[in-house]
This record gives sequence, structure tokens and C-alpha cells, in this order.
Amino acid sequence: MYLEQINQPSDVRKLNKEQLIDLAAEMRLALLEKLSRHGGHFGPNFGMVEATIALHYVFDSPTDKMVYDISHQSYCHKMLTGRKDSFLYEEHYNDVTGFSNPDESEHDFFILGHTSTSVSLACGLAKARDLKGQKENIIAIIGDGSLSGGEALEGLDFAPELKSNLIIVVNDNDMSIAENHGGLYSNLKLLRDTNGEAECNLFKALGLDYHFVKDGNDTQKLIEAFKKVKDSNHPVVVHICTQKGKGYLPAEQDRENWHYSAPFDKETGKPLYSSDRENYSGLTGEFLMKKMKEDKTLVAITSGTPTVMGFTEEKRKEVGSQFVDVGIAEEHAVALASGIAANGGNPVYGVYSTFLQRTYDQLSQDLCINNNPAAILIFAASVYGMSDVTHLGFFDIPMISNIPNLVYLAPTTKEEYLAMLDWSITQKEHPVAIRVPGGGIISGGDPVDADFNNLNQYQVTQKGKKAAIVALGTFYSLGKEVADEIKKATGLQPTLINPRFITGIDEKLLEELKVDHEIVITIEDGILDGGFGEKITRFYGPSPMKVLNYGLKKEFLDRYDVKEVLKKNRLTKELIVEDILKLANQL
Amino acid sequence: MYLEQINQPSDVRKLNKEQLIDLAAEMRLALLEKLSRHGGHFGPNFGMVEATIALHYVFDSPTDKMVYDISHQSYCHKMLTGRKDSFLYEEHYNDVTGFSNPDESEHDFFILGHTSTSVSLACGLAKARDLKGQKENIIAIIGDGSLSGGEALEGLDFAPELKSNLIIVVNDNDMSIAENHGGLYSNLKLLRDTNGEAECNLFKALGLDYHFVKDGNDTQKLIEAFKKVKDSNHPVVVHICTQKGKGYLPAEQDRENWHYSAPFDKETGKPLYSSDRENYSGLTGEFLMKKMKEDKTLVAITSGTPTVMGFTEEKRKEVGSQFVDVGIAEEHAVALASGIAANGGNPVYGVYSTFLQRTYDQLSQDLCINNNPAAILIFAASVYGMSDVTHLGFFDIPMISNIPNLVYLAPTTKEEYLAMLDWSITQKEHPVAIRVPGGGIISGGDPVDADFNNLNQYQVTQKGKKAAIVALGTFYSLGKEVADEIKKATGLQPTLINPRFITGIDEKLLEELKVDHEIVITIEDGILDGGFGEKITRFYGPSPMKVLNYGLKKEFLDRYDVKEVLKKNRLTKELIVEDILKLANQL
Repeated sequence: MYLEQINQPSDVRKLNKEQLIDLAAEMRLALLEKLSRHGGHFGPNFGMVEATIALHYVFDSPTDKMVYDISHQSYCHKMLTGRKDSFLYEEHYNDVTGFSNPDESEHDFFILGHTSTSVSLACGLAKARDLKGQKENIIAIIGDGSLSGGEALEGLDFAPELKSNLIIVVNDNDMSIAENHGGLYSNLKLLRDTNGEAECNLFKALGLDYHFVKDGNDTQKLIEAFKKVKDSNHPVVVHICTQKGKGYLPAEQDRENWHYSAPFDKETGKPLYSSDRENYSGLTGEFLMKKMKEDKTLVAITSGTPTVMGFTEEKRKEVGSQFVDVGIAEEHAVALASGIAANGGNPVYGVYSTFLQRTYDQLSQDLCINNNPAAILIFAASVYGMSDVTHLGFFDIPMISNIPNLVYLAPTTKEEYLAMLDWSITQKEHPVAIRVPGGGIISGGDPVDADFNNLNQYQVTQKGKKAAIVALGTFYSLGKEVADEIKKATGLQPTLINPRFITGIDEKLLEELKVDHEIVITIEDGILDGGFGEKITRFYGPSPMKVLNYGLKKEFLDRYDVKEVLKKNRLTKELIVEDILKLANQL
Repeated sequence: MYLEQINQPSDVRKLNKEQLIDLAAEMRLALLEKLSRHGGHFGPNFGMVEATIALHYVFDSPTDKMVYDISHQSYCHKMLTGRKDSFLYEEHYNDVTGFSNPDESEHDFFILGHTSTSVSLACGLAKARDLKGQKENIIAIIGDGSLSGGEALEGLDFAPELKSNLIIVVNDNDMSIAENHGGLYSNLKLLRDTNGEAECNLFKALGLDYHFVKDGNDTQKLIEAFKKVKDSNHPVVVHICTQKGKGYLPAEQDRENWHYSAPFDKETGKPLYSSDRENYSGLTGEFLMKKMKEDKTLVAITSGTPTVMGFTEEKRKEVGSQFVDVGIAEEHAVALASGIAANGGNPVYGVYSTFLQRTYDQLSQDLCINNNPAAILIFAASVYGMSDVTHLGFFDIPMISNIPNLVYLAPTTKEEYLAMLDWSITQKEHPVAIRVPGGGIISGGDPVDADFNNLNQYQVTQKGKKAAIVALGTFYSLGKEVADEIKKATGLQPTLINPRFITGIDEKLLEELKVDHEIVITIEDGILDGGFGEKITRFYGPSPMKVLNYGLKKEFLDRYDVKEVLKKNRLTKELIVEDILKLANQL
């Protein structure tokens, strides 16, 4: 086995043509074995096997520096840079993250999980090299749908200004997570169809030199191409055509679903653990589909992740022009939504919390200053969301809840979510965002008929005294547990409040609490700094009311265990009750 | 005078060829008169006179809908849509804002002041039109450097997917605020040089139909071109070449300085009120120039506004490759800085607070997760900054101070600023942002020699008791006034603290204050929600300490009077002291 002998990139260069072919086959086998048991980004890595071999054959990493866009396509790079064991031996599977990571290896330069960053970051590496008077090659590997993101386009536009070595490998597999969207992909197609010869060439139009490799899964062809551009004295694009999921039939045939895969049966490709459990994505899709039939101006928008709001390929076909996938282009998505709302349409943008970060200015400038009634559904905004450091979802409250005009809602149950969703697409007064609950679905049983036009009106779900618990969204149920436990421990029933609104405080209610309450507890599923609870605390700042805020510490966590994180932040029933009783005894 | 007779766009269509030429001359005269007295965006509007006339001659606004990018190029549009008086009569100059505004006119659809938004917003208007089954023309007018922004490129990439009417007028004046940067401008040049005939065409490469108008200051040629694309059933670009500042010699000759002009003498072009006062931009440029000579890896980065960090054309030439203007591309700027730092370079990015919004994800993902030691200087982050609703600078604290790993500093004097700037480019541990003080320069006299490596160590500038005033950055001087006034009123000396760090709290110091203090006051030059003061309040939440937070209300203000805003938010010495004494009496 060759792969076992690859301890550093120079070992790749010891292999001959045939051995490199065997190496590629071994790498695919290792990928298949690991991903079938462990899950991970399947399609992007299967397509990049040969290109990664060729890159390490031609260039001298880590002196030459490679930056993988998103870096979920860097598994093969990891295999060839001293980390093969993490792909060969199950006990080492978790030794590496799913993304590039300088803490793991000197061959990695950035922790990266969002798309469209590689060209700009590589420009930075190259600029520093030039300032230092050094000569190494800097290589950005981009593709897999990342090109449509604003940062990538800004980077490509800037690159020619460097006027020095920069090699941009465009991995064209004709796919984003779902199908590609945007006019530039028609140009990639034209270039594929003309063997790279078409005069109308996006990269040349941006001032970049350009090379084309038709068979991006042919190691030798790639080696030839990379040798040609090595030590180039100016920025150059190498456009390589690869096949997403190459080498595993189920993945070749259904590229969208095999972008990322949970553990599966290698023989059949079927998932090992299937779940038919109701989830918020499915609920959202069904609800919107129904509403779209009644309102032909209702339009669902995604930026490359249609299934987050439940729009499978089948559903997308059914609703036709009432669904828009803008590709990976979150800035455009929010501006588009604002424009639709400004002209009397009814837009709903569904997005993961971690990707909402990519469009702060559009939320503020294009949407909220204009106060247009678009709805934004924010998924995985929770400690129960994605746990890779690059995909954390619990920074959204400080990020967006402090933008004026936005109404940010935190439902606590399925019924409340649907009522808020319904209101968000019915009202015409505000930009409205909804923080889709994290964790499993909780049903309250009965439909919710609150009037959310009464902005910042909190719901008192249990009237008590001495202590009041203000428990936001996902953590409302934790608040309820705390309330029950206090009753059990002291015989005294605390007040329990579902605030519903993240973006404002119910001053009247908070004022009333002063009469017969001494302690207010806030609980939120996000970081404390700049968050919801601090607003309550500020309200009580000049008063004798004691306030305890519960939430997460401001820090980047990586591949964390939810239970441990909750405990560390004292976000458990027992620890909160302990704190409350201790404080109560001091009063 | 024809302009006086233009009460709506249809009045433009009553004029013949010669009269339209006279109208253009009259509009320039009105612009010159108003801008010489009032100040405003000069170059962009002087270049757009004929194009605006032609647009309103051909299209039927407001049924046909025009979206002006940035909208500081919409003065002529305002003149032709019922707002001529605001350009003809001094007493009406302030009836209109400097940007498009739906509250002013049914011919405006968005409040806009940031670049690169028009194509995406127009796509939204077009999408809603299609969903409603209507047929009007939607026109986006973009140019003047906006094309390099990620949102614009995302929008251009998406536009072909609309497959319906959208007219994108690219106003190519060969300039951003400063000279254009980025490869796409070389393509615009190629298109200009080939009369639009070059096969390699950025817009075509993005899947867009394309028309070229060589003389974009010839009303008749423009009318012809617009007539051709009117009612187009697919998205189309009309590339028009205009001259920035056209018709006023000083502005034609010095396009950078005439992008925006303060009031000036019409005859000479010289500013009416010149200021040689020391300012933070100048200080920054001088300091960095000096340091660049010692450190060849020190590189200053701007995204299209080089003078904000004091880099005039002359200084830029002097430092050569140690200054990088990425064009209007804030996302790229931050990623570039992170890349430079990752490879051992020393990047400093200077940016207006309002534009920093455009790069939230890069701050978090590209920079802070990677913990790279780049420095970011944030200008006009203050109530004393720009006062247009589109350019407010006081939302930065909630936006960025809650991102982990970032060290955000708030200097209070010139000496402290320079010490922090020096530390930011010397240390190698953290991404560091500095909130350049607002208002005039305050000098403390002596150099500051604090060690900022002691993160979150606040400075006690006056030790007292009972009350402690924590006064951040620009408002430290207000805090000092309050402290003095309390001493005067009560004989009791309060403690005064310069926190220096926005991103963390000095727990030890705050704990110590509990011993002999009953009230803590925080004062900050930004919105209260999600801001600095709330962090202090949270710390004291469970304790008997009373806390009063002073700062701005979370709201979009427009063209405000600073004094009024401060008073409304009780941000004056008198009002704060009044509150403190009242609260003290209750204790």
C-alpha cells in the first residue's frame, strides 16, 4: 500500500506514474471507508483526489503554500501531509478536523469553513511574501460553488493587481451543494465546451492569465499543467474540470445528496441511521408550499442550501418561480429579498445562522434602513447547531438584534414558530427574523394565536413571585424546568416568562416585576456578550432587582460536546437553581 | 429656463434636442451653485447629467423604476422628479437628502448610501414584478467604482437567472473615489478602447447581454441606446462612458478630490473654509509612514478611501508597495490583511465604521477564528461621525466587540491612540481594532506607556469613592466633566476610569469597586444595546451595585444635530449628574 508510506509530500514525488494511479485508488478507498463510518464531505473530496496528488507532486509544501477554499475539500491534502492515519485507522478518525487547521499541520495556513475566502487569503500570503522578498508559490484552490460569493469575486478582481506569483486552481465540478446558479457558471460551461478556448472568458475579463485542463481527474495531465504555471511571475488561473463524487457510483449519480454524507452502507449507499423525525426544515417547507398556493407573490429564497428550509428538488420543481436559489451569495439574497418586498412581493429567506454573518451590511443597509417587510428564517442558531468552529451558530443575537427596525423573534414551540412564520409573511410593517429553535421539536399542543404586532410584548406563562425567569426561545424549556425545581425546593412559585421578542424589552412588564420580585433570571441559547439578557440587566441597573444572566461565554468552540458546554456555562437546571438559592439566601 | 418647468419626468419629454442640451447646462449650473455653497458629491453628479436626462426621456418613472447605486449620483434624478427647488433655491437646499429616499418621492425606491447594492435590489424589484405579472422596466444605475464590491458582483452574476427585463446601466467614469483598482477595470478599458467590441467581456462572461455607448455625455446617443433596450425581455447591460466632474474644469482635472466637495469658491475651485487642524487621519498617515521605513513588511490597506488613514496621492507614491488600495472591496481587504499577517507581514487596514459593516464574516471567519495579528483602524465610529442615515458609525461596538479573539481598543487622547497604534503593529498575538476617537483631537500632553498586553486592564485615572465613572474612548472627557461636577456638587470625589478595552471587562477592578462604591456609571459613544456598558451591568447584576448606562438609543438617525442627540440621550454633564444625584438620594 502506497498511502501508508506517505509521511510528507516529498514521498508523493517518489512514486511513478502507475504508482500514482494506485495511490489515488487507495485514497478513494480510505475516504470511502472513513466517510461511510464517520460521515463527512463526500463529493468534494472524491473529485479532488488527483488534483491534490498533482499539487503535492509539483509544488513543495509547506514552502509553497496551498489554501483550500471552504477547506472541506482538503481531506486528500491531509492524507498527503502527514495525517494519513486519520483516514486509515478508525481510532484516529477524530485526530483531524473536517477543515484545514494550522494547529494540525504546518501544511495548513488557515482554519476555514465558509466559502469564497481562498483567493483573498492567498493574495495576503503572496503580498507578505513579496514584502519579505521571498519567492515561494502561493496556490488558492477554489471551486465547488464558491465562485459566486462576493468575497471570491472581490479576490479574483484584486488578484491581477498583485503582479506577482499566485496560482488559482478553479475546481470546476459543475456543482455547488445543489446545482450551480448564476451567469458565471454558463461561462465555465462555455469554457468546458470549447476546451478553454472561448474568447469570452470570465477570468481573462478580470485580468487573469488562464490555463485549461479538461480532465481534472487525470493526475499526469494535472502535473503537466501545474508544472507550466509553477514559479509564474504573475497571477494565473488553472481551470480544471473534475467530477464530484468521482469513483463512487451513488455519489456520481446524486451529487447534491452526496455533497455531505452521514455514515452509510458502502454497498448500497444507503444511510446507516435514517431519521423520519419531524424537523423545522420540513415543517417550514410544508407551511410555505401551502401558503405559496394562496399567495403567488410569496417567494422562498436560499443561498445554496435549499433543504435548510425544506425545499427538496421535488418541492423546488413544484413551486417553480416561487423558489429562488441565488447560489452562494448571501449578500445578494438579502438585497434581493429587500427589493422584492419594496415592490410588493413577499420574500422569505432561509439561512443558517453561521452564513447569515456574510450579509451584515445588507441586513442593516439594504433591508433595515429601508424597513422593508422581508422575512428571514435563521436555522441552527443554537448550541445544538453545527459544532465546528467555522460553523458556530450562537453569535447571531449580538450580531443582528442590535440593528434598528429589525424584529427578531424567538419561538419556543412548533406552534409558536408557525404562528410567527405566518405573521412574518402577513405583516407589512417590519423586516422580521425568526430564530428557528435548536434541538428537537417541542410541541405546545395548541395553536398559538398571539398578536405579534404588539412588539416586545412578553408572555407571562406562569405568574409567581420573588423570582422571575425570562427564558428565551430554545431555552424556554430549561427555564420551565428551573421554575418547577424552585417550586419543589422552596414551595414558592416563581414567575415564568416567554419573551418572544429578542430585539426589545417589555418595559411595562419588567417594571411590574419590581413590585413583588427580587431576582430576575435570563436564559438564552447564545453568547451573553451583547445578547438578550444584558438588555434586561441594563433595565434593572439602577434598581434593587438582582439579575442573573445565563448563556454562553464569548469564545470560539470547536467540535464540542453540548452537554459539557452547557455544564461549563452553568446552563443546567441544577446549577441555575443552586445559584438562585444562594443569591436568595443573601438577600 | 427649462429646469424651472420640470415638475415631473414627463416634462423632460416635451423638450426638443436643443432644449435638452440647454437643460443639461442649466442642471450643471444649479449643481455648481448648490454644491459650491452647500457641499456634496460633485464629480459623480456632474458626470451623470445627460444620462439622467436620457433615462427620464426614455423610461416612464415611477412605473418604470430606477435604482441609483450609492445614490449619491441621484442629484440630477431628483431635479427631474419634482425636486428641482432643492437645487435652485438656497432656502430649499436642505429639503432633500444627499441620497435617494422613498419618503421624498415616489420616484425613489430605496434609501441607499453604501456602494454595490443597486443590481441586487433591482433584481428584487424585477422578481416581484414578475411574480405579480406586471411589465414595467427596472433599471439599475451602477458605476463610479461600485462594481468591485462583492454584492455588485453577486448581483451581476445572479441577474441572468431572472430571464426577464432588467436594464443595468454601467456608468464607467474610469474612477472610484480614488483611482479604480482591480482587474475588471482593465476589461472596461479594453471595452472602451474597442468601442465595446472586444470578445473578452466581463458582462457577457457573466451571461449578460451588452450594449456600449461611447459618449455617455451625449444625450441623444444615450436616448437611442436606452430606446433599444427598453422593454427588453431579458437582463441587459448598457455600458456608458462618462466623464467624472464633466463641465467644471477643476473637477475634470482633479477627479479624486472632487468626488465630494465641501463648499468652495466657484471661480477658483478653492475650498471656502480650509482647515489645517491636526486630525486623526493625518496623524495616522504620518505615524505609519515613519514606521514603514523601519519595517518593510508593514503595509497599509484601504478599500477605496485612502485618505481616511492620511494617505494622500503623494504619500501613496512615496511608500509604493507598502500601500494597497483594494478598491471598494471591504471583504477582500480584511481577508487580505489576515493572509498577510499569517505569512509574517504586518497589515494595517483603515476603514470608516459604516463600511466595516460590509465585512463582518471576514472579521469573524477569516481573521478572528485564525487569531491573526492584523490591525484595523476604525474611523468615524462616533456620534461625531457622518450623520446621514446611510453612513452612521455608532453601531460598531455591538457588531464587532462580541466576536471572540478580537481586541478592540478605545483610546481617549492622541497620545493614547498613537501608543495603541504602535502596540497593534508590534504585538503578534491578536487581531486588534482601534476605535479612533470622534470629535476633535484631545491631547493628554505626555506619551502613554501602558502595556496593552495586559488585556482588559482598565486605567483608574482618579481614585475616589461612592460613585465610579467608567468612560469609554471619545466620551472619557465627558466622564471627567461629570466627575468634576459631582465633586463640586457634593464635595465627594468619584472614581474615574478609562477602560481602554471594549472587548472585555476588568473583573478584578470591578470587584474591588464593590468595597466602597454604590453606583457605577458607564458612558460610551455608541448605541447601548449590545454595547460596552451592558457588560459592566451584567457583572454587577447579582450584586447590590447600582449601574447607570449612558449611550445612544438603538435607532437610525438621519442628518441629526449632535447636540440634540446627546441631550435626548441624557449624554450631557448636567443630565448625568442630575441622574446620579437622584439615584444617590434613593440609596
